[in-house]
Amino acid sequence: MRPDTLGVVGLGAVGGSLAWQASLAGVPRVVGFSPRPAEGVAAVRAGAVTDLAPSIRFLCERADVVILATPPAATFQLLPRVARDLRAGALCTDVLLVKGRVAAAAGAAGLAGRFAGSHPAVSFARSGFAGAEPAAFRRALVYVTPVGTDDIAAREIADCWSSVFEADPVVLDPDDHDAVVAWTRHLPFVATALVARACAVHGPRGVTYGQEARDVTRGAMVPVDVARDVLLLNREAILAALDDLEETLGSFQQALRAGNTAALETWLTEASTWRRRLEP
Amino acid sequence: MRPDTLGVVGLGAVGGSLAWQASLAGVPRVVGFSPRPAEGVAAVRAGAVTDLAPSIRFLCERADVVILATPPAATFQLLPRVARDLRAGALCTDVLLVKGRVAAAAGAAGLAGRFAGSHPAVSFARSGFAGAEPAAFRRALVYVTPVGTDDIAAREIADCWSSVFEADPVVLDPDDHDAVVAWTRHLPFVATALVARACAVHGPRGVTYGQEARDVTRGAMVPVDVARDVLLLNREAILAALDDLEETLGSFQQALRAGNTAALETWLTEASTWRRRLEP
Repeated sequence: MRPDTLGVVGLGAVGGSLAWQASLAGVPRVVGFSPRPAEGVAAVRAGAVTDLAPSIRFLCERADVVILATPPAATFQLLPRVARDLRAGALCTDVLLVKGRVAAAAGAAGLAGRFAGSHPAVSFARSGFAGAEPAAFRRALVYVTPVGTDDIAAREIADCWSSVFEADPVVLDPDDHDAVVAWTRHLPFVATALVARACAVHGPRGVTYGQEARDVTRGAMVPVDVARDVLLLNREAILAALDDLEETLGSFQQALRAGNTAALETWLTEASTWRRRLEP
Repeated sequence: MRPDTLGVVGLGAVGGSLAWQASLAGVPRVVGFSPRPAEGVAAVRAGAVTDLAPSIRFLCERADVVILATPPAATFQLLPRVARDLRAGALCTDVLLVKGRVAAAAGAAGLAGRFAGSHPAVSFARSGFAGAEPAAFRRALVYVTPVGTDDIAAREIADCWSSVFEADPVVLDPDDHDAVVAWTRHLPFVATALVARACAVHGPRGVTYGQEARDVTRGAMVPVDVARDVLLLNREAILAALDDLEETLGSFQQALRAGNTAALETWLTEASTWRRRLEP
């Protein structure tokens, strides 16, 4: 669906970009809410929103589509309030990076039929409205995840992503989504942080780390609170992927310890072949 | 020492660059040897060498300094031949990435007093003389590693790196060198390959890996034979570092499995703080 009134809760980099892009795409009313007055003022000045809502309730009572562009704890707190205040026929989505627990919480809050989760695969260099970009979601991959077996709300939300934001939505079961991102996003992050943390605690002092080490560990600079929330939200799927990583490490150690050139070559070739297919 | 005659065995990217830079730096005679005639011709045409040697023996009998810019197996094979053919007062070095076994092999070949290892921390985008660059070693970090307790040859070789190649040599015990690079270079590579190999063997099919995953695994594209040789040459130090990596993985799994937010934050903060100090 293409809303007449879009409500965006949270006007940081994600919410600010969504509001801005919707305004530029011609959505008649884009109502924003931010707990930080300065973010709201910045969004109005940029033309990212047409109105600021004095409360989340005010926003929910007017919007056809409500996007919760809020951090994890706030999102989980807001779901029951949205369930209470959302007008008839309106839909809600969120933008958290993990979807299974959101779907469960939305179902528990009574939002089945009115909610589908979203995970837009877009990252921002800066946080806050100052980091918002008016075309951030164009051609972006967006996972849309139903609550339970309800595909109708999910299809409507997916249609909103493509018609308003020109994004490329993919509807996916929330638990399947979480299993996929455990591999595509969380495992690489853990490996990055693993090297950095091992170097920090066990590595030699006063030595020079070169470009490769810097490249491999760059991801460890993600803000600790963001990483912590995502890891805890997707705990089971990440732990399952880490069991596989541990087994992979074990097979490497075994081949190297034995000086087994053939096993080492096979192992390295599997890694290298997989990565070359991903180019660049 | 600054040689009158520099001998370079191997005219690939490393050897070709060394010869070329020495020629431009005014070394009167730069004698190259390559088992591949086309590489020798390319080096002559570029002005990288003043002479091509018909044999390694010919080169060793004339050079004041011989640099073995050859792959691991060839380097180990050449050390006894260099020991036999090197003229009185001349010195030899190599450019392998691991130094303990080179020092041991040079000592066993009777090169003590005439050899010190080198590890220039320079990488090349292309292999062969086509990848050679005439200023590749300027301001490069170069580890120089003595054989046994002989510091004199090491100091002479270090002086050659700074006076001819304008590099920044650091003299270091070969085993200490290997322990350092196990952390600074080999552990990051293994982690990179670990993620790629785990995804290849255990990961979900037909999913999209984003920028972070591509960045973290980019190192896995290193040629398999190069990686294999380095890993086997520095086996003990890498296995020791991997024990620490495994312990670090264990502490992460434990914190995540228990949902221990405080432990997870501490762990992530250690990783993040270490990496931020490395900026960029």
